[in-house]
Amino acid sequence: MIKQSVDRETGSRFLPKFDSNGLLSAVVLDASSRVVLMVAFMDAEALAATQETGIAHFHSRSRGKLWKKGETSGNVLKVCDILVDCDQDALVLLCEPAGPACHTGATSCFYRKLEAGVLQPVNT
Amino acid sequence: MIKQSVDRETGSRFLPKFDSNGLLSAVVLDASSRVVLMVAFMDAEALAATQETGIAHFHSRSRGKLWKKGETSGNVLKVCDILVDCDQDALVLLCEPAGPACHTGATSCFYRKLEAGVLQPVNT
Repeated sequence: MIKQSVDRETGSRFLPKFDSNGLLSAVVLDASSRVVLMVAFMDAEALAATQETGIAHFHSRSRGKLWKKGETSGNVLKVCDILVDCDQDALVLLCEPAGPACHTGATSCFYRKLEAGVLQPVNT
Repeated sequence: MIKQSVDRETGSRFLPKFDSNGLLSAVVLDASSRVVLMVAFMDAEALAATQETGIAHFHSRSRGKLWKKGETSGNVLKVCDILVDCDQDALVLLCEPAGPACHTGATSCFYRKLEAGVLQPVNT
């Protein structure tokens, strides 16, 4: 256990750590602007599909299945790079978005800021 | 249900959406460099502690309790701004870190990149 923990942190082996629900966190950044576009979850299937296709796939917790982001809208996310954190339970995907990342039409899902307890629009 | 969903997306009310485990995702960015420092989870207690103190608190899933980041190391994260996503189940914390964000001593937990299936160091 300790050995694998050290391997995860210091080694060059990719040993993704899925939680008790079989998920890890995935943060999508625009590869050019470095703006955070969205946050989602991946299971082993979504990670494999992402690695195989170069297009971001997630696990939809609400629908309980594989979710190719942009499958309907066409606003897919082309993955340029994948960063991995210390304990390998979170990924940063540096992506080239084909269009707005948010289903609301916003460039980023993070289009509001909390100010004195109230949400205010931000420019993204 | 639909009404609350629309409120969450378009309204100015902060209605954080915790999942079935009582958690939401929190992505920490360096407020100056905009580098992703770490990804963690918050429950209602951690969010309240963060809002009250201005210092990032999370919920440690491994320890099952409130986790003030930097409590031991001193490397606390001063929260400058909080961005909220469309469905309010993820937050971006723009922070001023007092030191390295990663327990390994790295500036960011994302110090490796996946290249052809192998992890390579990146400069952070």
